[in-house]
Amino acid sequence: MYEFTSPFQQPSGSPIRELFKYLGEPGMISFAGGYPASDLFDVEGLSLAAERASANAVQCLQYGPTDGLATLKREIIGLMARRGAACEAEEVMATTGSQQGLDLLLRVLVEPGDAVLTEEPAYPATLQAFRLQRAKIVAVPADAQGIQVDKLASLLESGACGKPKLLYTVPTFANPTGATLATERRRALLALAVKHRFVVVEDDPYGDLRFAGAPLRSLLAEAQAIDGARDWVVHFASLSKIVAPGLRVGWMAGPREIVRRCVIAKQTVDLCSSPWTQAVAAEYLAAGALEQHLPKITAAYGVKCAALCAALREQLGEAIEFAQPEGGMFVWARLPGIDAADLLARAIGQKVMFVPGKAFFADAAAADKAALRLSFAAPDVEAIKEGARRMKRAYEAGL
Amino acid sequence: MYEFTSPFQQPSGSPIRELFKYLGEPGMISFAGGYPASDLFDVEGLSLAAERASANAVQCLQYGPTDGLATLKREIIGLMARRGAACEAEEVMATTGSQQGLDLLLRVLVEPGDAVLTEEPAYPATLQAFRLQRAKIVAVPADAQGIQVDKLASLLESGACGKPKLLYTVPTFANPTGATLATERRRALLALAVKHRFVVVEDDPYGDLRFAGAPLRSLLAEAQAIDGARDWVVHFASLSKIVAPGLRVGWMAGPREIVRRCVIAKQTVDLCSSPWTQAVAAEYLAAGALEQHLPKITAAYGVKCAALCAALREQLGEAIEFAQPEGGMFVWARLPGIDAADLLARAIGQKVMFVPGKAFFADAAAADKAALRLSFAAPDVEAIKEGARRMKRAYEAGL
Repeated sequence: MYEFTSPFQQPSGSPIRELFKYLGEPGMISFAGGYPASDLFDVEGLSLAAERASANAVQCLQYGPTDGLATLKREIIGLMARRGAACEAEEVMATTGSQQGLDLLLRVLVEPGDAVLTEEPAYPATLQAFRLQRAKIVAVPADAQGIQVDKLASLLESGACGKPKLLYTVPTFANPTGATLATERRRALLALAVKHRFVVVEDDPYGDLRFAGAPLRSLLAEAQAIDGARDWVVHFASLSKIVAPGLRVGWMAGPREIVRRCVIAKQTVDLCSSPWTQAVAAEYLAAGALEQHLPKITAAYGVKCAALCAALREQLGEAIEFAQPEGGMFVWARLPGIDAADLLARAIGQKVMFVPGKAFFADAAAADKAALRLSFAAPDVEAIKEGARRMKRAYEAGL
Repeated sequence: MYEFTSPFQQPSGSPIRELFKYLGEPGMISFAGGYPASDLFDVEGLSLAAERASANAVQCLQYGPTDGLATLKREIIGLMARRGAACEAEEVMATTGSQQGLDLLLRVLVEPGDAVLTEEPAYPATLQAFRLQRAKIVAVPADAQGIQVDKLASLLESGACGKPKLLYTVPTFANPTGATLATERRRALLALAVKHRFVVVEDDPYGDLRFAGAPLRSLLAEAQAIDGARDWVVHFASLSKIVAPGLRVGWMAGPREIVRRCVIAKQTVDLCSSPWTQAVAAEYLAAGALEQHLPKITAAYGVKCAALCAALREQLGEAIEFAQPEGGMFVWARLPGIDAADLLARAIGQKVMFVPGKAFFADAAAADKAALRLSFAAPDVEAIKEGARRMKRAYEAGL
């Protein structure tokens, strides 16, 4: 009886959130969610930060600036500088998680029908945001070194994708692949952006979660050394994976002309993110608590990642293919000859869950059916080992 | 160098936020903002609520359900029931302030070019949200009893506005007029919605701020007695004006088919609002603190409103026209023969501020230039009296 807009005539919810209904089943082991480990939250540090923030209770309780509390923006700028990227205040805005930043950016930059590039496989909520904006999604394949920049160059030269407005990538510990874009590819990507005048959207929620290998500079930081490149990089980051998602504190760092328009869009979207949780985040960062606590999270994730990779190898042997990531929360695996959606149905019977790969492809029909994403962040090591045993039983039941 | 979408090629920020730059001037008295009075925040009650919420720290810190924490939804449903509107859980979702609810609703319901109706004068952020969605705005005039439903009926019968998707109204203590829609008009409006099949968007942030007169039932509550009308009402409410905006806790109550689609949109927009502030709000409501504290706010606003109306009458005599509101935060006044934008320039020189009326009109060229909005919520009674004296000086300087 209602006339919904075209993306909402037959709306489909998040394919990952669709799986949540099984989470409540007793004894379920989940490799499915993208949730950080709750037992690693720095409850004590955040309580102290909340206590300090409450000294300015009235500021926490009133409306705040649309671009974020000045105290939080100062801390974000400091954090970005420590990560190698110098930012001015006008180049930064706080958002309700980095998810909101992408939504704002698409509103100001992407008209229906515009071409947008994305690495593939890609974060499903980004694909969904593109669909809601009615963009034309053009996928660029990624491998174990991230998005394949040579293929991107050919695509751009061929003109087959028209003039794309932007390219989306998670260059460090990608979701879902766990892959990290090699430095040479980072520089080549930025050169392409300058040449072809498209915005590189660098989504970087996981970059600090490194437990092996040497850190790489973000695209935003690399852009400083490439003439004109800073004009074409919009960087998203967040406290969701390194502190706690419940703060809903993320941010955007990019060209001031783009940030300014996103701030105006946010006035209409929600006026401001909660000054209360922004103030807590600012106090937490100001106290140096992130630097103190983060090593505990990355160490634990390193142990969990190693446990998952070893257990998958032990249980599934040569049947499974994957590259062991150096950070982040995800292992991207393939079981050649298997349809991961069928495997999931059997796995749920065995009380173990993961996300079938097709959720991460723009065109489900063209998806890699044998692929699956496993998150090692939430379960403990014993659960990881037992989960891998159950994966084996589910796999063998389908042979 | 960037190709922005059409609403963002020449973006204009909120006309009210544009005035904020003057707020910092020493001695400035502001009737301009729509901010609630900071000194009336129930800091003690909210601190207690925060303490209780911290008993579930992990829930506060993790991602939450997109439609809102179950504990908060339960309290919202209880509050709505006390306000006379029975709601099921699937008919309610929490949002980042009610502002976000409107944004979500427009995304799922309004295609570019669709006609949308609004009372006029109207809340500027709503007009801006309509513009961003590229809707065709059709204004229906409001008077001291709210939107003129007989004019709406003629408009609908004439077919001049096509088939509108929705109508936006603040029926109780409107922004900017302070007017309240009479009960007969409420019922007639609902009958028109059923007949012409458009959604009535009832924005109700101020309804609880009544300091005079008898309460009226909301459109959502009235709709229960009119066959089919509940299918056509989407109700927005918020804790921003009755508890504190910094929580960013608002909600939508409407038909489940619409709410379901808004929840799916929110998955992509920001995943969830902060579970931390949602938990604080839930504890605050569960403790009955709203009912305990709210009378202090309404009593104070009643005193301030009376002070402003008396001072305007005393200073400006017959030169000023206004109706004294029975609640809310705003007095809508006219100074016949004056251009309020010019008056504002002189007023700022006298260290007093208000919002010229044209911000509240869909078409600035057709605006009532003599109108202005004065908020009595934030300044204290002495400041209100002094502000009115300065208004007189600014007025006389222009004669």
